[in-house]
Amino acid sequence: MKKILFQSDYNEGAHPAILEALVTTNMEQTPGYGEDTHCRHAAELIKEACQASDADVHFLVGGTQANVTVISSILRPHQGVVCAASGHIHVHETGAVEHGAHKVLALPQHDGKITAEQVDTFVSAHYADESTEHMVQPGMVYISFPTEFGTLYSRSELLALSHVCHKYDMPLFIDGARLGYGLQSSSCDITLPELATLADVFTIGGTKQGALFGEAVVIVSDRLKKDFRYHIKQNGGMLAKGRLLGIQFEVLFADDLYFRLARRADMQAQRIRQAFAAKGIPFLIDSPTNQQFPILDAPSLQQLALSFGFSLWEKVDDTHTAVRFCTSWATADEAVDTLCQAIAKL
Amino acid sequence: MKKILFQSDYNEGAHPAILEALVTTNMEQTPGYGEDTHCRHAAELIKEACQASDADVHFLVGGTQANVTVISSILRPHQGVVCAASGHIHVHETGAVEHGAHKVLALPQHDGKITAEQVDTFVSAHYADESTEHMVQPGMVYISFPTEFGTLYSRSELLALSHVCHKYDMPLFIDGARLGYGLQSSSCDITLPELATLADVFTIGGTKQGALFGEAVVIVSDRLKKDFRYHIKQNGGMLAKGRLLGIQFEVLFADDLYFRLARRADMQAQRIRQAFAAKGIPFLIDSPTNQQFPILDAPSLQQLALSFGFSLWEKVDDTHTAVRFCTSWATADEAVDTLCQAIAKL
Amino acid sequence: MKKILFQSDYNEGAHPAILEALVTTNMEQTPGYGEDTHCRHAAELIKEACQASDADVHFLVGGTQANVTVISSILRPHQGVVCAASGHIHVHETGAVEHGAHKVLALPQHDGKITAEQVDTFVSAHYADESTEHMVQPGMVYISFPTEFGTLYSRSELLALSHVCHKYDMPLFIDGARLGYGLQSSSCDITLPELATLADVFTIGGTKQGALFGEAVVIVSDRLKKDFRYHIKQNGGMLAKGRLLGIQFEVLFADDLYFRLARRADMQAQRIRQAFAAKGIPFLIDSPTNQQFPILDAPSLQQLALSFGFSLWEKVDDTHTAVRFCTSWATADEAVDTLCQAIAKL
Amino acid sequence: MKKILFQSDYNEGAHPAILEALVTTNMEQTPGYGEDTHCRHAAELIKEACQASDADVHFLVGGTQANVTVISSILRPHQGVVCAASGHIHVHETGAVEHGAHKVLALPQHDGKITAEQVDTFVSAHYADESTEHMVQPGMVYISFPTEFGTLYSRSELLALSHVCHKYDMPLFIDGARLGYGLQSSSCDITLPELATLADVFTIGGTKQGALFGEAVVIVSDRLKKDFRYHIKQNGGMLAKGRLLGIQFEVLFADDLYFRLARRADMQAQRIRQAFAAKGIPFLIDSPTNQQFPILDAPSLQQLALSFGFSLWEKVDDTHTAVRFCTSWATADEAVDTLCQAIAKL
Repeated sequence: MKKILFQSDYNEGAHPAILEALVTTNMEQTPGYGEDTHCRHAAELIKEACQASDADVHFLVGGTQANVTVISSILRPHQGVVCAASGHIHVHETGAVEHGAHKVLALPQHDGKITAEQVDTFVSAHYADESTEHMVQPGMVYISFPTEFGTLYSRSELLALSHVCHKYDMPLFIDGARLGYGLQSSSCDITLPELATLADVFTIGGTKQGALFGEAVVIVSDRLKKDFRYHIKQNGGMLAKGRLLGIQFEVLFADDLYFRLARRADMQAQRIRQAFAAKGIPFLIDSPTNQQFPILDAPSLQQLALSFGFSLWEKVDDTHTAVRFCTSWATADEAVDTLCQAIAKL
Repeated sequence: MKKILFQSDYNEGAHPAILEALVTTNMEQTPGYGEDTHCRHAAELIKEACQASDADVHFLVGGTQANVTVISSILRPHQGVVCAASGHIHVHETGAVEHGAHKVLALPQHDGKITAEQVDTFVSAHYADESTEHMVQPGMVYISFPTEFGTLYSRSELLALSHVCHKYDMPLFIDGARLGYGLQSSSCDITLPELATLADVFTIGGTKQGALFGEAVVIVSDRLKKDFRYHIKQNGGMLAKGRLLGIQFEVLFADDLYFRLARRADMQAQRIRQAFAAKGIPFLIDSPTNQQFPILDAPSLQQLALSFGFSLWEKVDDTHTAVRFCTSWATADEAVDTLCQAIAKL
Repeated sequence: MKKILFQSDYNEGAHPAILEALVTTNMEQTPGYGEDTHCRHAAELIKEACQASDADVHFLVGGTQANVTVISSILRPHQGVVCAASGHIHVHETGAVEHGAHKVLALPQHDGKITAEQVDTFVSAHYADESTEHMVQPGMVYISFPTEFGTLYSRSELLALSHVCHKYDMPLFIDGARLGYGLQSSSCDITLPELATLADVFTIGGTKQGALFGEAVVIVSDRLKKDFRYHIKQNGGMLAKGRLLGIQFEVLFADDLYFRLARRADMQAQRIRQAFAAKGIPFLIDSPTNQQFPILDAPSLQQLALSFGFSLWEKVDDTHTAVRFCTSWATADEAVDTLCQAIAKL
Repeated sequence: MKKILFQSDYNEGAHPAILEALVTTNMEQTPGYGEDTHCRHAAELIKEACQASDADVHFLVGGTQANVTVISSILRPHQGVVCAASGHIHVHETGAVEHGAHKVLALPQHDGKITAEQVDTFVSAHYADESTEHMVQPGMVYISFPTEFGTLYSRSELLALSHVCHKYDMPLFIDGARLGYGLQSSSCDITLPELATLADVFTIGGTKQGALFGEAVVIVSDRLKKDFRYHIKQNGGMLAKGRLLGIQFEVLFADDLYFRLARRADMQAQRIRQAFAAKGIPFLIDSPTNQQFPILDAPSLQQLALSFGFSLWEKVDDTHTAVRFCTSWATADEAVDTLCQAIAKL
């Protein structure tokens, strides 16, 4: 029997409505590089959803690409990007930020997050140091929402981060590769329009939330807008058939689909979470979104691995391993049922 | 009435067989990042077509990305890439190669091409110079096949280039963004397996030849293979749902489709070419592939612009402009008929 | 007998007054990194000489370092630096600018120079292009004064370049590695204070004009001043014992020494020039400064090479070679006498 | 009264013998860029001292420059350099390594050091990870000897590091900015020739040990030697009057001067250390070399600051600060006497 994969939120293709739109529009003739009507329309839909009519919206293929393009467009050479030590740009992008010639200034994380106070202490220490110019200048702050551990910043935490960023003239960049799962979580106390007032630039991930691929970059701050398309092209992110991105985001944002899919995935994840909790299985971290990190003993791990795919996250001790189960727009009720039954039998 | 676009070879979506395959496979669960069975199968098909069973095949989304990833993986910091002054990497990639910290060493082009003799003269002059180490060392050679002007290197020209590259220990990289159009041209005297013995690494373009997107990188030389996946990831080219690339190339290489589509587009281009020639309209360059560059006087240009889309290429004199018409897998017979009739009426 | 070297303007150590100052100050205790009183004093002297009291003055060790630090501090990632194809940064710095991730946008040179009209045409074509963002954006202009061929821009040429730079919001950077030789040439029609109003940033070379080493970077434009010391450090140009640079420039600018030395070297070069001209020997280029480029036939070249060192510049034809003779602060009258006699005997 | 500075080991100029040599050789005419007889001779002396007759020796101006040139010459783009979190390249070079496009892979330090075991664990974890290619590959190891805290690796620690480096095919680079102070310390159990068999490449610092400036790079491993001069030039480290470096190292290595000066400075530092210890003042770290890090309470700090210069290192608690006192070749007996008396009176 084929295993059911919960390894990631990109194990399947795209939501059927997206495929359908690609088929329907296939023989349309459009200009390339994102200068078509679909991209324009999708951008309008996103600006409406963000209540940010002055924002610039661009579409890129992947997350690493989007991160490095945004960061590279903002920083001057002597500046680095502040982030949590668990931040995706620090850990899992093969040094793409450094390949773009900038240091990642990693701060200790707690639940995948950093605090405004940490940032304030770090940046003020930089400017207070006798040899300031011998050190990389903090030039911007990167956070992910939800974090790599599925956790969420609260509204007040984001507000405080936004304040400290402005205090030191550092743009705040929110990596929203899984933004929908965050905003739709029952634990989330912030809306997309609110988030758009706190971030200077952020992404809305499509790849992990129903699209074949695609990340929307929303640039809120005027001073970050200039020449962004040059940066996209330079970083290899300008898709020849750019409309593919526009068409996908048109579908996702046309009818609240993006958020409906995320909400459902979050609920599936909560079902899985409860199944583990019911067995007294602890979690590496308390995640309210679509990623769950139970800590399994060796027999349980082996047992579940017979029928399910999931990611090994980290060794907790000699006999226990934290693993990751992800849900997505594509996770079927039956798949979760089967998993929960298997958990109950552990 | 809507204009018929001949602006580029990426004005439409994908060949229907590709869309169909994406729909069919949509709910399959696979691992990400190109480690799925579709990618493996597509790689096998390509190695067969190249008769290069030891080659490594990787799939990237776009051409600039593929170029910069290949180049960045090969060169040491003090080395540059030799190419024609008209080379895509020199002119139209927003300095992506330089953003990756390497100089493009541009040589004068003729019909979009450089010769082995030019390369030999240039490289031997470098090593003969008193201040060799004050100059960028030529580390590899980049050519495009067909070139940016639609022209082709002959077999003997490629053989000579390959020789001079080996003489100076410089890998030869062939950018095959439009490889099919080249190989299927009636003027082409080289086969894909032959090309695969002359290049150290080359690409097989999908984006302009029937795919939604995608470039296959074929690494022939053993010493260029190590750690290439790190470079893909670092350059933002590792697609989460990597199978999308595998599925597309499976379709293109399953049934000779890639070459059949290219052959047909080349023939459509020759029909257009003959229509211009029949009117005594000259060409900027003599192209045997899917791009045609007639030189139009102002009234003809205006007349054609009413019903057709095409690219302005360069001003030839005060009253004449070279323009570009492209055909592709998607060019309908009727579209070419309509264009040829309009040309006849100029 | 030892050959007399005219190979470069850095064949000897430093002017004795500089060595003396280094000896005198040797046991002073000062803070490092250019934050000592000598550096401050030298900066004041230079600002006075430039009549630019608001300028920032920094001291770096070498020319390539100064060029790359200035350029890297100015450009955004998608921008390149416009220069003559013969520009030092394009030809003889092992791609240091590209290693810093920027493209050098080389324009055809005439006598080592580019014109305001060339720049205007190039930049306006960039912005007019349909695919502007697919090309590197011209972000600044680099010229050398004197040029690599010893030639000079006239005041009106510089004025025009300055105008076109401002028109497109591109800083004008003048590489003054041999600035003194230029300003003291009898053909020069511009003063240092005038030059300081036309450039946004420029260097005053010490290495080739009497110092052991050292280039002063003069930043005139306010918007280029911020955080420059970070860039110096990042580019490896912050000398621990920074005072060594201050002390040397104090001596050079204390008593007009810098200009007196340059004037004398220019006169020695003119003597050499007249000796060649008197024999009917042609020149590759008409240089009014300390570098002379006679074109020698093979027997003359061999004859002179017995007793003198000079640089081979370029082959002119099968039997003639352009060579370079340099004078400097250290060129003795007797050395020039001996050379002129040898030339007369050819 | 002028304060006596113990702030750094580069508060003065150069040892008088070096100045004398510069004066004596001043009017010699030599070729530039390190291709003169002084550089060749100095390289020979260093190879003798290292008993490494096959090594390549190059001379660069400064430490950051030397570090970034060595690292940039070794790593491929997807690789990073492993070092202690306190390593100079990670903390105090304004991200020069990242500006050169490589990540610094910082490991937790103990007394400024990392262990072979740490490196082994880190690197084996990298290769064991499911998503290896999503992370920067460890490509080399950097340590400083002595460390930034003045501490020393023992012979067995170095041997173990060398082993683990070879196990993973990672060159070991030892930053010897203060190498002499390390080798001459009474706590040191390794000789220069032994060190030269364990490192693949290392530097011998001149700037902090009697020279005006200058770092010798000693390349032991054959495979790291190729084309190194290109890298020097590209990184702005090729001094036009390169002989200045050769002359200085000739003096330092001609008569054991380098080591005699270091030994004396170490002894002066031990006198200072004992003075603090005699008062029961604790140290941040137990340093056997020329840097001492006593922890002062506020009144003591204020008292000493009246007459002496020293560096503030880090706050230990609300009322205590660790500071740094450095000795050097230039530290006079009387200066240390005065300091010790002042300490005794605290």
